[in-house]
Formats: sequence, C-alpha cells, structure tokens
Amino acid sequence: MNGKVYLVGAGPGDPDLLTVKALRLLQTAEVVLHDDLVAPEILKLIPSSAKVQNVGKRCGKKTLQQEEINFLMIGFADAGQRVLRLKSGDPMIFGRAGEEVEALRRAGVDYEIVPGVTSALGAASAVEIPLTHRRFSSAVVFITAHQASGSEAANWKKLAGSGATLVIYMPGKDYSRVAASLKQARLASDTPCAIVSRAATSKQQAYRTTIGELAVAPALPAPSLLVVGEVVRLADVDVFQNLEFPMPQDQESAVSVSSSAAQESVE
Amino acid sequence: MNGKVYLVGAGPGDPDLLTVKALRLLQTAEVVLHDDLVAPEILKLIPSSAKVQNVGKRCGKKTLQQEEINFLMIGFADAGQRVLRLKSGDPMIFGRAGEEVEALRRAGVDYEIVPGVTSALGAASAVEIPLTHRRFSSAVVFITAHQASGSEAANWKKLAGSGATLVIYMPGKDYSRVAASLKQARLASDTPCAIVSRAATSKQQAYRTTIGELAVAPALPAPSLLVVGEVVRLADVDVFQNLEFPMPQDQESAVSVSSSAAQESVE
Repeated sequence: MNGKVYLVGAGPGDPDLLTVKALRLLQTAEVVLHDDLVAPEILKLIPSSAKVQNVGKRCGKKTLQQEEINFLMIGFADAGQRVLRLKSGDPMIFGRAGEEVEALRRAGVDYEIVPGVTSALGAASAVEIPLTHRRFSSAVVFITAHQASGSEAANWKKLAGSGATLVIYMPGKDYSRVAASLKQARLASDTPCAIVSRAATSKQQAYRTTIGELAVAPALPAPSLLVVGEVVRLADVDVFQNLEFPMPQDQESAVSVSSSAAQESVE
Repeated sequence: MNGKVYLVGAGPGDPDLLTVKALRLLQTAEVVLHDDLVAPEILKLIPSSAKVQNVGKRCGKKTLQQEEINFLMIGFADAGQRVLRLKSGDPMIFGRAGEEVEALRRAGVDYEIVPGVTSALGAASAVEIPLTHRRFSSAVVFITAHQASGSEAANWKKLAGSGATLVIYMPGKDYSRVAASLKQARLASDTPCAIVSRAATSKQQAYRTTIGELAVAPALPAPSLLVVGEVVRLADVDVFQNLEFPMPQDQESAVSVSSSAAQESVE
C-alpha cells in the first residue's frame, strides 16, 4: 500500500472555516504534522489513533528544520501512511508548501495540495474590512514585515506606496519598525490601519489606529495581521478594543444629515 | 421572527472546497441570491424548497443593478427569511461585499460574512504554484486587468513591477492588452505566466507561457486567472495543455546530472 502526503490549509482558526475536504482528511489522517499556529480547536478534531507532531516554531525557537519535516513526511508516506501536513491559513501563501512539494517530487512520493482560507480573508470577514472596494482600493497586497528592510526594501516600498490595501502578515510586536517602513513608503500618517490578532477564534482581538499612532499601539498576541488602507474605515466598529474612528467622507455627511434632521425634530 | 443575510464565499468551484460553515448555510437556506460565476456543482447542494435567483452578470449583460440586489437581500430578510448571498471565491476580494454590507447596515438588517477560498488560492493549489516562495517571491498581489489603463495605471505599474507574484483576476480574453501593460511595467519578456481557467472544477484548463508570448495564447473560458512571476516555473507540468517549460536553475542542473548519469550507463 502506498502512502500519500496531503498539504492542507487549516484556515484562520475557526473549525467551521475548514474546507469540507480538509475536515474529512483531518478525521481520517494516520499521521498529522502541524505548524505551531494551527488553532487547538482544529487539532481536537484529529482522531486519537493518529500520530500527531508539532513541527512548527515555538516561542521563536525552531523545533525542526525544513529538512527534518521533509524527512518525516517522506518517511511516513513510504511506510504506507496517510500523512496530513497541516498549515494554518493556506499552504501556498507564506506556508513553504513550494519547498515541501519540491522535496516530495524528488522523493517520488504521491501528494496533493488542499487550499484553505488564508488568514487575511478570515480577518477581513471577521472585522468586516473589504480588502478591495470600488471607491477605495482596486488591489490587495499580501506581504510580511520582514522584507521591509534589507535587499528587498525597494520593492517593499513600491508595494506599500501603490495605493493598494496592504495585509502585512507577521507584523511582529514592535510596531514602531513597521510604522517607520510605512512612512518611508510615503504613506500618510492618517492612513487607517488595524491589527487583528487570532482572527476567527474565540480569542480574537482587534485594534484600530493610524500609521502615525501605530508605534504606540498595544502588542496583540500572535498570530496577528496588520491591515493598512482606506478600506479599514469601513470596518465594523464594534469589534475593536479601542475608541471611535472617523468614517469615510460620504458616510460622515450621511451621519451629519440624519443628526441635523434629529435636531430639527427635537426643536 | 427576524431574518438574516449571510454574505458567503463559495470558494473556487469544487464543492469539497466550500467551508464547513458555507455548506451548512447552503443546505439550510431559504433564499439564495448567487453570482453567475458560482459553479453549478455548488448550486446543486441548495435544497429544492429554497428560492434561488441568479443576480450576476450573464454574457456581459448585467441582469441586476447593485441597488436591486440590495433591495432583494433586505426585502427577504425583513420578511423573516434566511438569505444566502453567495459569491464565488471570497466575498471580501473583488466581490463588492463592502457595498452590500453598507446597505445592510443602513437598513438595520442582521448579517454575517463568511470567508471562502479565493480563486487565486484554488488555482495555486490546483496547478501547484506557490504564490510566495523563499527563493522567488516574498509577496503576492491580487489585482484585476481593468485598472491597467486609466487613472489607476500608475499604481498598477508599481504593483506589476514590484517583483511580487501577480494574480490578475478577470484578465479578459484579449491577452495582448494585459501583455502590453505588463511590458510597460518593465517586466521581462521571458517572465513566466500561466492562465488558469475554471480552477478546481472538472473543467479546469491551464496554459503556461511567457509575457512575450502571452498575446498569442489561446483564450480560455471564464472564470479565469493569470498568474505572473518566477514561481510559475515551479508549477506541476502535467496540468498544462501546452509543452515543456524551462525549470529554475537548480532544478535544471539536477535534471542534467541525472540525464548524463543515464547516458553513462548506456555507454
């Protein structure tokens, strides 16, 4: 009997946001090798008969090298097992699935890739930020904070300064660095942004601010995302820990019209 | 009894790539208002008791205005119905969910947004293109072809020329226009790209080419996506309708090593 490796996206955290296919594979897996960021609620769905190993980073310490993960995947598949390589979000975005696929191809191991709801989409729905919008933004960029300095800084600046909605994965906890990079990309200080932590889980937290104030925002627990752009103004105000935020121009005027109408009726 | 509107992403097409939540909502919906691009395999899951209306565009002709869609959503919810506003992919990316949410908020209608696997992720997994990769690309841009000309052309150029992987939604069927825009953004003619049509369905087709040859690529049926960037070289060669494609440098040398080894054994 030949084994097979499934590279599977576990989505943003809520087990209800697993794909039907991911849930079925999870419930029938013989071996699960998962990243550290996969939510505990999802790991609970794995049958107790399965061998389960966390192959991710813990507290910044890499527990296993990529080569060791490849070795485990290939070894269990060669032994005839159904191996689930479970990644938070989607495997093809910041998930190193490309490198694992190259290793599986070289080893001649059967595999399949199953997409998932990437964290940016989980966060966008949870806090109600449309990532594109006819009036505000016609493109969205998924990027990490790491590339803001070093050899890729010039391209990072181009992307950040393009007018597109930015979703910055892994913004870290020192927001002053990413704030400085965004200012260097000539983004205005009053550009709205939102930090969304543990999106689509019971521990979700969100904080809304501007690039100018980002450096003093409270550090929220990982995994978190930073969404930057005018579309952030459209978010659901009730999900944020902090105070009121200015609405876009046309909604502001709609509000002032109705409040003056209310005033009239009072008078 | 109060009704509710669910703005739900149907994913790329395969019913197995619906989220668990989307499937449950689909099977219990009383009213379904769906876009034209939602796959027929998914519409089959709606119970026969539900009222179902296609509110999308058909053959380029807009069957309903946005205001009419808002009117239907709000009207059915006010009548106490469970309304599913079903969109292909994810509602927050090129799905106009933002505008529908604004209308629902104004009307005071209860609603919820359910994310989905956006088409770019469905296509990436299906043809095995990692959208980010440590060696090739540290960012990905989701954009449409429409913005390449007109007032947004300057920003489109910045995004296209940033070195990030580009996923161009709705590339149209005249690829010569998008090819010209990519060249104007100073992308090299030999930059690999792939057209993926009806990703993650039984009718999936994919074609791999370069920006230089894109203008003469066969027009594949909508919905389709154009993926541009070095990561396209990593795709699974077996999924493409057309011929062999050069591999990245290190894999090329691996291939030449094994073929010279084979030659030796023949000699």
